[in-house]
Amino acid sequence: MEKFLDGEAIAALEKLERAALINSITGFKSLNLIGTCNKTGHANLAVFNSVIHIGANPPLMGFIVRPDSVERHTLSNIEEIGFFTINHVNKEIYRQAHQTSARYSKDQSEFDACGLTPSYKNGFAAPYVEESNICIGLSHQERIDIKLNGTVLIIGKIEHLYFPASVWSKDGFVDIEKAGTIACSGLDSYHQTERLSRLSYAKVDKLPEEIVVAYK
Amino acid sequence: MEKFLDGEAIAALEKLERAALINSITGFKSLNLIGTCNKTGHANLAVFNSVIHIGANPPLMGFIVRPDSVERHTLSNIEEIGFFTINHVNKEIYRQAHQTSARYSKDQSEFDACGLTPSYKNGFAAPYVEESNICIGLSHQERIDIKLNGTVLIIGKIEHLYFPASVWSKDGFVDIEKAGTIACSGLDSYHQTERLSRLSYAKVDKLPEEIVVAYK
Repeated sequence: MEKFLDGEAIAALEKLERAALINSITGFKSLNLIGTCNKTGHANLAVFNSVIHIGANPPLMGFIVRPDSVERHTLSNIEEIGFFTINHVNKEIYRQAHQTSARYSKDQSEFDACGLTPSYKNGFAAPYVEESNICIGLSHQERIDIKLNGTVLIIGKIEHLYFPASVWSKDGFVDIEKAGTIACSGLDSYHQTERLSRLSYAKVDKLPEEIVVAYK
Repeated sequence: MEKFLDGEAIAALEKLERAALINSITGFKSLNLIGTCNKTGHANLAVFNSVIHIGANPPLMGFIVRPDSVERHTLSNIEEIGFFTINHVNKEIYRQAHQTSARYSKDQSEFDACGLTPSYKNGFAAPYVEESNICIGLSHQERIDIKLNGTVLIIGKIEHLYFPASVWSKDGFVDIEKAGTIACSGLDSYHQTERLSRLSYAKVDKLPEEIVVAYK
């Protein structure tokens, strides 16, 4: 049976039920830990399921943040020092990643509280997550305020990038499934993945073919 | 072995290799077909892996579009009629969904060319995809131009929502994995999922527990 809800029915839902519903229906989401620190070097870590690709040249990534939530430390640190890290969550650390969303005080580091290890590499100002397999260091480029609901889109440029050499394919594709990265749905559902296939570049006059992943 | 690339090394990559690399490292992405039509009723369909959650109240979703790409018909149609649909891609239709990214002419509908069925429901102006299990009708709310690279963030408000009643859980969570929705990585890699667990709301003084999904 198909369920139909219009705008009025959605608005009439209880607040937490509506949040769970609307957060579910976007589709699967990326799952990343964002590492920051303030000028005194106090490290902060927060889990985000809103990291997105903005563009490849220049290499840009973004994420949505709510200034009024626990994630505000992430935003204020980024605006304070101008740098942040994005770290993929894998099966071994998703419980710790989830735990970073608890409302720790500004004096407490989520790294310590949740059992993850900050790692400073190649002179980059913000901390990476040592337990993460794919780690990205970014410089803050732009803050876009979304007036419709008071959220903010933060865009950063990739300055440093780390990933296992064994998952890099000859055409540039990074096999994040092989690296152990997991996906998220809704607010709290965590999923491992199984590749169906890679498909060749779509052309009008022929059907796509499967791409066999060949590593470098 | 860990691979390290800095901004200079990324910039020096061949264009397609860089695109494949940077598109891979965001993490898993949603996979949706966006349905639109113009004033004369000509239907258009395009696959997007950039649909994101913007907020639950009001219920807002967004996606990133490149005005200079094949997806420009989607953008011009949305600006012409003010409405669009977002339709989840499942295992049965991901090849057809991929094929919508071929450069069909403005006179050709991707629905016909790719073997998907347009569906008009409850007086909504834009076409849904009949083969999709979760379908969302949205009104255009805002266009945000990202000057850093000329992309555009389109934000819509959910007006109509359809999903299988059997995948709705008592707390509002929609089990999109049970509905057959798949995920994407990179530009062309398609993945089915397997839930690890849902975790309870994180609190400072206790570890998260597994949530057993109970359907309505």
